[in-house]
Amino acid sequence: MLGYAGVAVAGAVAGGAGGVAAARRADDASHQAAEMVARDISPYGEHQPAIAALSPKHAELVALNLLPGTNKAALGRLMRLWTADIVALTAGRPAPGDTAPELAVPNAALTVTVGLGARVFALTGSKPAGFDDLPVMRHDRLQAAWSGGDLLLLVGADDAVSVVHAVRRLVADAAPFARPAWRQTGFWNGTGPDGQPVTGRNLFGQVDGTGNPAPGTPDFDATVWADTPDWFRGGTTLVVRRIKLNLDTWDELTRSEQERAVGRKLSTGAPLTGSAEHDELDIEARDADGRLVIAENAHARLSHHSENDGRRIFRKGLNYVQDTGPTRENGLIFLSYQADVAGQFLPLLARLDASDALNEWTTTIGSAVFALPPGFTESGWLAQALLG
Amino acid sequence: MLGYAGVAVAGAVAGGAGGVAAARRADDASHQAAEMVARDISPYGEHQPAIAALSPKHAELVALNLLPGTNKAALGRLMRLWTADIVALTAGRPAPGDTAPELAVPNAALTVTVGLGARVFALTGSKPAGFDDLPVMRHDRLQAAWSGGDLLLLVGADDAVSVVHAVRRLVADAAPFARPAWRQTGFWNGTGPDGQPVTGRNLFGQVDGTGNPAPGTPDFDATVWADTPDWFRGGTTLVVRRIKLNLDTWDELTRSEQERAVGRKLSTGAPLTGSAEHDELDIEARDADGRLVIAENAHARLSHHSENDGRRIFRKGLNYVQDTGPTRENGLIFLSYQADVAGQFLPLLARLDASDALNEWTTTIGSAVFALPPGFTESGWLAQALLG
Repeated sequence: MLGYAGVAVAGAVAGGAGGVAAARRADDASHQAAEMVARDISPYGEHQPAIAALSPKHAELVALNLLPGTNKAALGRLMRLWTADIVALTAGRPAPGDTAPELAVPNAALTVTVGLGARVFALTGSKPAGFDDLPVMRHDRLQAAWSGGDLLLLVGADDAVSVVHAVRRLVADAAPFARPAWRQTGFWNGTGPDGQPVTGRNLFGQVDGTGNPAPGTPDFDATVWADTPDWFRGGTTLVVRRIKLNLDTWDELTRSEQERAVGRKLSTGAPLTGSAEHDELDIEARDADGRLVIAENAHARLSHHSENDGRRIFRKGLNYVQDTGPTRENGLIFLSYQADVAGQFLPLLARLDASDALNEWTTTIGSAVFALPPGFTESGWLAQALLG
Repeated sequence: MLGYAGVAVAGAVAGGAGGVAAARRADDASHQAAEMVARDISPYGEHQPAIAALSPKHAELVALNLLPGTNKAALGRLMRLWTADIVALTAGRPAPGDTAPELAVPNAALTVTVGLGARVFALTGSKPAGFDDLPVMRHDRLQAAWSGGDLLLLVGADDAVSVVHAVRRLVADAAPFARPAWRQTGFWNGTGPDGQPVTGRNLFGQVDGTGNPAPGTPDFDATVWADTPDWFRGGTTLVVRRIKLNLDTWDELTRSEQERAVGRKLSTGAPLTGSAEHDELDIEARDADGRLVIAENAHARLSHHSENDGRRIFRKGLNYVQDTGPTRENGLIFLSYQADVAGQFLPLLARLDASDALNEWTTTIGSAVFALPPGFTESGWLAQALLG
């Protein structure tokens, strides 16, 4: 006779003022097997809550294009609909008019992040400074199928069914206003074998995202949260780049060649000049032969904020696989949050495009950028200050 | 300042003699936040261990076709390679020659199930009775891209990165012998909001899999485990059918129309003649107007073992989504385990094809069947009794 012992998933993210919030709830007595903790994440706050939170295990990004006739007022109606959907779905309740209400379940850590593409601001005015479609870079091999878009939905959860259900509801409610342009599905493992949060690895096996400012610190706030225009205070921008990884040629390298291309150790993510993941890079260090330990073209050097006039970004990633019949493409959905795309991200992008050693094994095939409005309160709605 | 509280994942599957086994391991003192339980599932035993276990959160199925020249001896070499891979990967260790060893992590509940298609037995002889490629049914709209195959890998885990990594390793090691024919990726939520195992729901929102015999019971053993031929004792067969669900037309039904098509309540999965999920169907019950409560063509009636001369199957499912640009297809990877395909599954398939009310909203687009060899011991390897 098989007996299934209890399965418990526990976790909480405690937010600073206006930050990410997750209620911690004691288990009731009927579940002796395990401590239970509610994982529903409040949809309310100064900022959209998923931005500063840990990467979800599953996520979908859906870009939508506005239908002809969707004007500023219509966009406001859509944002009110989406706000109501988000409030319900993130609490594990069916959205209004939900056709599969049983698929709305609590404790899935569901989050929804909404973004506005550049074309929206032709309707509304008040475009954030430095925000516009990204230039096409020399190494880019962009496909229309993964690029651009007027609106973004980024839905994340611990559970793929919850993601698929929420996306279906949100896309259905958008149908009078906007239609999907592309969909990208990704996954991330941000939990170590001991159950503790870790940075996570991309499909090259690299620890990916080490250099981030820590959420809640002044550095993070200055990096991520915009101040102007007024409606955008507490918002940010999100760059989405779909990067194909050539695992076959990458695997032909020795481990030291792989580490040299990145400038970090594969085992721990530590810089080649250090021993622990979060050790600072010593970009001046040289080996016994006088060569830079972290090479001129190493990804970690070129993406380090010291090379970017101190300007930083907040990086997340999602792994993806894309199957064409029996053939599998492996890749990374690169996500970069920053207050100011032009000031913080574009110089970095240009430097990586020009010199990054990793360009030999990576190809960017999709590119998009969205302004993420600030969060909303219980009496408000998404982008109300822009569209209300 | 954000503080991340501990995240704990705990679970154990306790196996009967020769059944599924998972070691329970006490947390060490350094992780006060949460009780930790090892989730690695032993690869050894009388049966391949994932068959009787709970559905994984993520899974990939890869069908491979043998290359010309892969004879019985070569197939044996592949099975020995795969056995070594499975022993390492399911323990969270890199496979031999692993090019991304850091992606092998413990506690991912990784399992690998291997199957043999009908064409293999042209090389080996000793084909199980009743085992052959499935007939094409009247409602089938089969695509070659999702059908057939000489070998099957079914890899499941709690974490998608672990699945992708294991599949990559296993497919790479198969390259001299066999090449992928198709890949299917699916997901399942078999955990309730309270952390306890539940049957889970498909993307129609239906509880899916209620009628199964319980692993470890005599009924389960008789349903699933084969006795003959000798090499196949403790093995089983797996039918894989890719079923497209038309959510748009399904959503046009009222809930009572949906429930009538299935014969079960959407809320709980209980039969329309009962109140709890596992209540037995009363297939004779009639309402005040004299109509059968569970309709003649209701899926639950037609798939009930009382309609199948008492012969049962062990059903699992995986939800899938398949995107073609912005268009999403939703579906179910139907998985049926049974000792004898011809005796247990085909009559059921014929009856559902002829009459199932659900046929209006479902289309089978892929079909395959594999013989799953018994498990192996620490000194043995997969299908050794057939190929050794």
